This record gives sequence, structure tokens and C-alpha cells, in this order.
Amino acid sequence: MVNNVYGHETTGSLMTTDYVAISDTSNIEEAVQYLRDNVQGKKHIHYIYMVNEEEKLSGVLSIRELLLSTNDNLIKDIMKKNIISLPLDLDQEEAAKVFRDKDLVAIPVVNDEGYIEGVIHVDDIIDIIHQEADEDIGMITASGKEIDFHTQPLKAAGRRLPWLVILLFVGLVSGGIIARFEETLEQVVALAFFMPMIAGMTGNTGTQSLAVVVRGLVSEKLDFKNTSKLLVRELFVGIFIGVSCAIIVWLIAYVWIGSITLSFVVSFSLLCTLIIGTLAGTIIPLILYKLKADPAIASGPLITTINDILSLLIYFGIATFFLNNLL
Amino acid sequence: MVNNVYGHETTGSLMTTDYVAISDTSNIEEAVQYLRDNVQGKKHIHYIYMVNEEEKLSGVLSIRELLLSTNDNLIKDIMKKNIISLPLDLDQEEAAKVFRDKDLVAIPVVNDEGYIEGVIHVDDIIDIIHQEADEDIGMITASGKEIDFHTQPLKAAGRRLPWLVILLFVGLVSGGIIARFEETLEQVVALAFFMPMIAGMTGNTGTQSLAVVVRGLVSEKLDFKNTSKLLVRELFVGIFIGVSCAIIVWLIAYVWIGSITLSFVVSFSLLCTLIIGTLAGTIIPLILYKLKADPAIASGPLITTINDILSLLIYFGIATFFLNNLL
Repeated sequence: MVNNVYGHETTGSLMTTDYVAISDTSNIEEAVQYLRDNVQGKKHIHYIYMVNEEEKLSGVLSIRELLLSTNDNLIKDIMKKNIISLPLDLDQEEAAKVFRDKDLVAIPVVNDEGYIEGVIHVDDIIDIIHQEADEDIGMITASGKEIDFHTQPLKAAGRRLPWLVILLFVGLVSGGIIARFEETLEQVVALAFFMPMIAGMTGNTGTQSLAVVVRGLVSEKLDFKNTSKLLVRELFVGIFIGVSCAIIVWLIAYVWIGSITLSFVVSFSLLCTLIIGTLAGTIIPLILYKLKADPAIASGPLITTINDILSLLIYFGIATFFLNNLL
Repeated sequence: MVNNVYGHETTGSLMTTDYVAISDTSNIEEAVQYLRDNVQGKKHIHYIYMVNEEEKLSGVLSIRELLLSTNDNLIKDIMKKNIISLPLDLDQEEAAKVFRDKDLVAIPVVNDEGYIEGVIHVDDIIDIIHQEADEDIGMITASGKEIDFHTQPLKAAGRRLPWLVILLFVGLVSGGIIARFEETLEQVVALAFFMPMIAGMTGNTGTQSLAVVVRGLVSEKLDFKNTSKLLVRELFVGIFIGVSCAIIVWLIAYVWIGSITLSFVVSFSLLCTLIIGTLAGTIIPLILYKLKADPAIASGPLITTINDILSLLIYFGIATFFLNNLL
């Protein structure tokens, strides 16, 4: 049963009311009898919940524990009082985190006053985890939501097109930058040879950082300590990757073109763009997360395209600066 | 308990032996007593399994069903004989699909002769689904496996670097193509203005198709009918997207540069590269899947880079062909 009174994709809308609750003053025999009378037609009953005299959730027992108890026991004496529960308005992704951590097959949903409102079952959570992963991948790759093998051609094309049109315009900005540096390019056409590599590499490292952030946020809370540690780590990664690739490219460019200055411009540009691209791929999704937007909106293609622009600006900026030496 | 005798990431290595099985000739009272005696220290017992006189798996009852039965019942008469089970050597991703479809909290693992060997619990499957999604995203973005917020800087950089070095060399191939068409480029420098857009868009649509294929394969079987339907669909998507974007670009290029021929070369190239890029993003992961390699190896950055090369070849090829008209 899906409930629509509660917020979209929250515990309230996900829970079912297929659960069994009983007064914690009952004894085992009463509980078993109550269960027998009330369980018909309810799927997935793995726990029985207890409520106190105020009707608030006070305990839980698995059906197995109930079965193993002797009839002399009082429910109150054997029930677990340390109950894991979820609030009504929790995002379903957060609920999935709790299921991952706690190894339970069902978790009760409780309102602010402590009354049990429903139960979430693990099989719904499996669907959520799938759905969230699909959404993350859809966003990271800018392929839009909900395209599978059976989506109709026109629908699939229509869902993908808006992203592509946005990226088309952003891509033309790169062209505008090249046009602005037309003079530099005309003087040293060889600069164009390294353009796709520099733009591509900046995009690639940005996409990698994006993936790390988006998937990390599935399991991590983002506090100041975590964030600053991540930023410092990615800065280091950018420098390490930048220096390594710059050395390789310096050698290749020198052997290929034979100009020390051009090799320097290309490899120094790559060093700068890899560091900036890595940081952009980290910072953009983090900012979106802080603004409560899904960080996966910072799709791979978007980060790639932004990094295209940054990398061309840096590359042609550095090249123009050293132009006199290149000629 | 993790078993290492079985293949990596198979049901055999995932299952636990924490299960309870009893002869199907028992009566309910004996079953309850057996459960009480054998369940201590075993986590997550939600089902009791029955074996026949040959010790082969013959039935299943949930603990709840056992509790609800009256002691006069014979196990044989009330047990479910239509048992969902998994073979020993099934890939864990396939096992996750069965859990998604069947809404069970545990599924027995049975060998070729029909003997029960263990049980897989849903909480292990949750971890698998997460892990597989992380792997898919890691591969799609070429960020390597297992980088999270706590990975040490040097380790994170080391895992990302090999992918980037490969992409660096592939990226230089693009440069080589531009160098081959240096003459064309020198004659019409404006061609360079549209280069990043064309290469970028081809990569973007390829990444979108890749995502659809990789995520689709999580839930779909790939037979001839499915594959050909998908290919035809993606061909249509490529044409639809190609025509739409080509019209937009034709207008922009004409307003910007003022040359009908250049506008034609740019928009016709974009049409061709978008169709080819869409198909490349579909076919490459499908081939890898058929070759039993993880289709996600066809990472976004790799498809982007391959599409860079294809798009530059097409763009400069078309431009060179129309060069006389452009000048």
C-alpha cells in the first residue's frame, strides 16, 4: 500500500500498514493468539511490535523470538526495548542507509509523539537502492531518468535531448574561447593538436572526482571535517595526477613537435587544468549537495563541458603569454 | 561466515550455513522443538527448510507459518513445495535479481544433486546491490574501484592514474588527426571553433547510451530480440537527436560565421557524429558483455575519447571534402 499523504520519496510514503502490534502487558500466549488472528493476508510479518499503555511503541520481538519463548514469559520481560525506528518524513535514501547498517528485515516508522504509523520492509528498500543507483548513474551521465530497454524511441530521445541541447550551447562557449584566441592559434597551429587531449583529460579527472563524491554521499554524512579532508585529498590527487601526466606529455610533445617552449606550454597547462578539473569535479557536486540539490545533477557531461571551457582558457592564456617564445 | 571454496562473487561464496533444516516427515511439534534447540547463535532465521528421505531440499516454511500452524498438522502437508532456490555457482548480481523479483528475505542455495548447501540473506544482497552500483559508476566514470571518502590520497591517485594515462594517449590520437588535417585547419581556422562542440556532443550522447546499456543489463537478459530492438531504438534516438541538434547548430553557425557552406559542414558533421556516437555508446558495451567482460569497462571517458577520434575524423573528412566551397 502506498501512502500519498506524506512527502515524495519519504519513509511516510514508503511504509505499509501491514504490521502487528500488541499491548506490552500481554503474555506470550495472548501474543501468539493475537498474531494468529491478525496475520492473515499480511505479507512479510517478521516482527511483532509492542505498545505501552499510552499506545506508544515500546518494544519489538521477532516472530522467531516469540516462538522460542515459553508461555510463562511476559512480553514485557523478553521484548527488546532498544528499538530502531524511522521518523515519518525521512528521505528514502536515508532510510536505506539505516537498513544497510542495521541488518533488519523491517523497521517501524514512528511519528513525533512516538506512535507507530507503519513499517518499511527490506524488499521495498532493495527497490529504492536500485532506483537511487539508477538515478545517480542517469544524472552522472546526463542520460535523464528512467530510460530502460523498453522505453519507446521517441520518449527516450525526448528525455535525452534537453540535456544535449544545454551541453550544445555550453560546448559552443568553448568555440567562442578558441575564436577569441584565433590569432594565437593561427600563429601556432600546433597548439590545436593538444587541444582535445587537454580538454579531454580535464573532463576525465573531473568525472572521476564527481563519481567519488556522488557515491560517497550515498553512505557518508558531510560535516566540516569530512569535507575539508576530502578537498585536501582531491587537491593532492590533482597535483599527483597533474605532475605525472605533465611529465609524460612534456616528453611526447618534445619528441613530436621538437619545441621546448611548446612542450612546456602544453605540459604546464595540463598540470594546471588537471588540478583545477579535479577540484571542480569535487566542489561543484558538494555545493549542489549543500544547496539541497541532488549532487548528481552536476552530471559528468556538464562537468566535462565546464572543464572544457576552463581548460581552453588556461591553455590559450598560457600559450598567448609565452607566444613570443613559441615563435 | 564467508566461504572461499567457491568462485569469486558467486552464491557459493556469499551463502552462510546459518540455517535450520528438518526432515519433512516431522510433525509441527517436533519442528518447533528442533528449531528451539538449533536456533541459538544463528542470526536471521526467518525460514525453516525441509529435506526428504534422500536428504534433498523438499519444502520450506516461514517461522510465521510454523507459528500459525496447529500441532495436529504434519510438516509435509503444510510446507511449500514450490521452492525458490539458487545454484551454487550463480553470479551474485544474478542472485540479486532473484531477490528483487521474489520479495524473500532469504533464499536457499542448492547443489546440482538438490542438497541444500547454505542460505543467502537479504542483508548480504543489499550490500551486493550497493557494491555493484558503485562498481558500475566507478567503471562508467573510469574512476577505478573502491575509492571512498576515506581512501588515502596516494592510493586514490594511484587508482585513478592508470585510466588517465590510457586516456592521455588516446587523447593524443585526436591531436594526431588534427595534425593530419593541419592544412585544412590552416585554411579555415573557423573550423576549430566548432571542434570542441562536435567532439563533446558525440562523447555526451555516447555516455548517455552507455549508461542506458550498463544499467539495463542489471535487470535484463540480453537475447537476440532485446538486442536488435535496443539497437534499432538507439539508431532512432541518434537520428532524432542528430537532426534536432544539427538544425540548432546550422542556425547558430550561420549567424556567427555567415558562411552557408561552413554551417552546412558543421551541422552535417554533427548529424553524422551524433548518430555514430550514439551507436558506439550502445554497441561497445554490448560487445564487451557478449565477451563476458563487464560492460562498464567501456567507461564514459573511454567512449568519450573514442567518440572524440571518430568525430574529428568525420568532421575534418567532410570539411576537407567541401574545402573548395568553403574558401
